[in-house]
Amino acid sequence: MIEKKGAKPLRGFRDYMPEEMLAREKIISIIKRVYESYGFVPMATPALEYKETLMSSGGEEIDKQIYSFLDKEGNDVGLRFDLTVPLSRVVAQYTDLPMPFKRYQIQPVWRFDKPDPGRFREFIQFDIDTVGAKEMIADVEIILAMYDSLIALSLTDFRIRFSSRKILNSLITCAGIPENKGQSVFKVIDKLEKQGLEAVKQELGQGRIDSSGACIKGLNLLEVQISKIVDFLLLPQRTRDEAIASVTEFFKDVPNSEEGLRELKEISEYLDAFEIPKERVIVDLSIARGLDYYTGPVYEAILLSCREFGVVLAGGRYDQLIKRATGEKLPATGASIGIDRLFAALKKCTEVESKSSTADVLVTVMMKERMVEYLKISSRLRKEGINTELYIGTEKRIGKQLEYADRHSIPIAVIIGPDEFSNNQITIKDLRQLKRKEINVEGHEDYLKARIGQKTVPDEKLIEEIKQFL
Amino acid sequence: MIEKKGAKPLRGFRDYMPEEMLAREKIISIIKRVYESYGFVPMATPALEYKETLMSSGGEEIDKQIYSFLDKEGNDVGLRFDLTVPLSRVVAQYTDLPMPFKRYQIQPVWRFDKPDPGRFREFIQFDIDTVGAKEMIADVEIILAMYDSLIALSLTDFRIRFSSRKILNSLITCAGIPENKGQSVFKVIDKLEKQGLEAVKQELGQGRIDSSGACIKGLNLLEVQISKIVDFLLLPQRTRDEAIASVTEFFKDVPNSEEGLRELKEISEYLDAFEIPKERVIVDLSIARGLDYYTGPVYEAILLSCREFGVVLAGGRYDQLIKRATGEKLPATGASIGIDRLFAALKKCTEVESKSSTADVLVTVMMKERMVEYLKISSRLRKEGINTELYIGTEKRIGKQLEYADRHSIPIAVIIGPDEFSNNQITIKDLRQLKRKEINVEGHEDYLKARIGQKTVPDEKLIEEIKQFL
Repeated sequence: MIEKKGAKPLRGFRDYMPEEMLAREKIISIIKRVYESYGFVPMATPALEYKETLMSSGGEEIDKQIYSFLDKEGNDVGLRFDLTVPLSRVVAQYTDLPMPFKRYQIQPVWRFDKPDPGRFREFIQFDIDTVGAKEMIADVEIILAMYDSLIALSLTDFRIRFSSRKILNSLITCAGIPENKGQSVFKVIDKLEKQGLEAVKQELGQGRIDSSGACIKGLNLLEVQISKIVDFLLLPQRTRDEAIASVTEFFKDVPNSEEGLRELKEISEYLDAFEIPKERVIVDLSIARGLDYYTGPVYEAILLSCREFGVVLAGGRYDQLIKRATGEKLPATGASIGIDRLFAALKKCTEVESKSSTADVLVTVMMKERMVEYLKISSRLRKEGINTELYIGTEKRIGKQLEYADRHSIPIAVIIGPDEFSNNQITIKDLRQLKRKEINVEGHEDYLKARIGQKTVPDEKLIEEIKQFL
Repeated sequence: MIEKKGAKPLRGFRDYMPEEMLAREKIISIIKRVYESYGFVPMATPALEYKETLMSSGGEEIDKQIYSFLDKEGNDVGLRFDLTVPLSRVVAQYTDLPMPFKRYQIQPVWRFDKPDPGRFREFIQFDIDTVGAKEMIADVEIILAMYDSLIALSLTDFRIRFSSRKILNSLITCAGIPENKGQSVFKVIDKLEKQGLEAVKQELGQGRIDSSGACIKGLNLLEVQISKIVDFLLLPQRTRDEAIASVTEFFKDVPNSEEGLRELKEISEYLDAFEIPKERVIVDLSIARGLDYYTGPVYEAILLSCREFGVVLAGGRYDQLIKRATGEKLPATGASIGIDRLFAALKKCTEVESKSSTADVLVTVMMKERMVEYLKISSRLRKEGINTELYIGTEKRIGKQLEYADRHSIPIAVIIGPDEFSNNQITIKDLRQLKRKEINVEGHEDYLKARIGQKTVPDEKLIEEIKQFL
């Protein structure tokens, strides 16, 4: 017998079932609202692009991961692997786009990566970018909106870190390392938080054996170069001001280091204008961000109580990237939010409401011959703004119908059986409290509305009402 | 020189730029809210599926249109061409899914079709389905939510039509046409509205030459068979009751015709329970809906003042389809909304608000050295719930900045130049009315909020305020 592939998704792919979708959509809509309040606008691009558009933008590693094929017309096409390349294509194509162009984009991307429990071959990216603004204020806006988003998600225990690629470039100059070795040095430095200083030193030097026994080749820098880098990484940087002061001192004889320092200072000044706790947005001289194309400020956010999820939100300035598509230099800065990772972190480290239904009420059906009346009641409840599911399944027994409500976390059931019909009553059952109450048919929407209308705000009123059940 | 493919999307694909995205998202969120009020929940599935899962579900025509290829692991994969096949796969896979499963799904699908101005190779489908409910009440819910959605979109001039495939099956029996010819007969009947009765008669008979000179082969039915079909199509059906009465009479000697008649009657009875104008939801005996897999009720909606856009929303019951994936019979009914077509129709036939920004206010920047203050004002406005864009572009002149606001339909500009700074004032410019007003810096958020907070409701308050400008 042939293996039945038909009943499962491809390896590295997954379905988003209602419970997860509802929670994710909530997160997405919160972040959307924040970015929209800054004037960012939505955009969407096709899943497929010419392979030519996609290639060599993300680096060799990414090129290998592109899902590409010949379409039925003989075009060499590929599925997008990020949202920055399509943005560049759009900016190149729509030449009359008013600048600055501030867009957000929430779409899946595809990478033929090695799948593991936390890594999928299809995942949602939420990108925010400003194209055509060269001043630091554009970077600050992205950082502020990152900050506002995390606050809006009810997170308190996060940290935003920023630096500039120009600072690291000056470090290279300062340590006498040739420019073409810069990217590899940055990638090692970026490991500081995860691997620790000793591992970084070894990788800058002759290499090391990692915990799994694998051999990691070193960059073979000179002792004096390594020690310069270590001094830099150990600079005091408890506050933004301290970090900027110490790196300014450190670079005092390094030619062309002013630009990077100015960037840090300017961003820090803007941030000072807000009442953001100093420890929430810090300068971290070690951050480099993986991507080769960053040219200026880089920034990232981590959740302190969920460090295992790493960086949930990150970005930077890339003033050269769009030039590849347009031929014209166009400054740009932006961040990408790993929605799946953020969701996983929120699920683990905060209390995410878990619901697999949008309904507030299930109207149960005890007497099918009176379906018209059940239908009418459902419809009247909906008109009152109460999401109402009418039970249309095959179970006849009330117990089974209540079980259905329970499995979907529908909080309230409306029951109208023979007794209720003859007494002109409705029974309302609170499935969370396992309490019931009979009320007259007249006025039942008001009653439900008063109770359900409150459920997303602190529940005093609801609790008060439920107490009356006792 | 190589043609620069990089600066355009593939043929048959397109970008959704902010203006269109904002309008489309508004439509989608309105329809979502309606379906959620009925207890439908969101779900999403991967873009890629095993080709085996996709093949032979949509018929031969669709099979040819699937974007398929071998992935880097040698799997034969394809991009989904609809959302019903992935739903079937999910139902087969998650065997403990509580029934009925009522889900909506809004995702793009891909078909290698001949692109033309209204037809794309990637398009968004909005599907709503109920799986595991065999009673007509499930179909009625889909129809009622279709109705509520169109009302919620402020449409008044629409018509929902329904019938049942079983009625057409009885017509085949009644006209003495072999069952295996049924689908081809239905496809011809489905053309009644577009092509007219004469064309349908010719196609049922010896064929016809269409307006472009192309030859359309006929089904070569007998004269007596054709005339039976014509009699059927001419049955009086001004109201639901009339249609049901006349088709009942027409089928009085046809064996096994009761089931289809019962379906129509039952749906009609439920609809009677609502105060839906009779002409809004009608029985239309000619509708068949293209898909082969429908087994019971079929339904569709058209916009009467935009008939050229055809059916914007349609569906039906398909009690056999899921069996192909699960091996188990599982009743299902559902509709698909052509979001692109609906959007095009709304754009042409109603007044769709056209905005390419989410901002209510643009804070202009006349003195860059005081950017911190502009930033603070923007931030305070946002805290008041006013979407505020701070101008971060390169234009220094106020005129150019106002032009930017205008191009994005941002209604209000805030201007603080040297005069305003020294007088402790803010100038507010209403860009729709080209009026301006100076107000004290204190209290400016209240002023703006009072004005902008109203803009989505009838604009009396806003107009009143604007009048005070005069």
